[in-house]
Amino acid sequence: MLANAGFPLANFASGEVIFAEGCEGDFMYVVRSGEVEIERNGKVIETLSAGGIFGEMALIDGSARSATARAKTDAECAPINEKSFLFLVHETPFFAIAVMRTLAERLRRSASRD
Amino acid sequence: MLANAGFPLANFASGEVIFAEGCEGDFMYVVRSGEVEIERNGKVIETLSAGGIFGEMALIDGSARSATARAKTDAECAPINEKSFLFLVHETPFFAIAVMRTLAERLRRSASRD
Repeated sequence: MLANAGFPLANFASGEVIFAEGCEGDFMYVVRSGEVEIERNGKVIETLSAGGIFGEMALIDGSARSATARAKTDAECAPINEKSFLFLVHETPFFAIAVMRTLAERLRRSASRD
Repeated sequence: MLANAGFPLANFASGEVIFAEGCEGDFMYVVRSGEVEIERNGKVIETLSAGGIFGEMALIDGSARSATARAKTDAECAPINEKSFLFLVHETPFFAIAVMRTLAERLRRSASRD
């Protein structure tokens, strides 16, 4: 479902920065094809493939990007703006659970680094 | 809303362990009154008061408790089991957003420790 949400796709070339740590963010993304790396302080902390979501934190709490997202290969991603995000949370409980699972997984991974 | 979800309340005495790191978890909790501390490796990583939520990760991904929750003062908490959690996510988008905000806040705090 998440990889086919029906939003217009954005195409990124291998190596292209999708968004940069510290910048304002108005979109989250669902990976449709290819791979996306999440980097913090120049270190890759996660690699996402089809169905993976990233950039959701800027929509949830309005803060600046906490990490950089870069296309590891040519990648297609579905951008989701705040309005669509709220719509999906309201209308698609599976989407809300998927976002929570992603956050929980990142938290556990982060905790294991403590 | 979260502090008045209508679930039967559980009372914990000051110092009492609500759940322990590493254990299985079937409930998340909303603090109704008093304060609750979240500890990892014996170190307090967060203190919650009325409206704060904790223990949600065990419901989201079914993993063992990643931290210990202890009543810092006498505390009343509303336990929410998986069925109620899924109901709230389905029926109350505000609840889903509140859970996501809590997870995002913890992730940002955790990232700032890296």
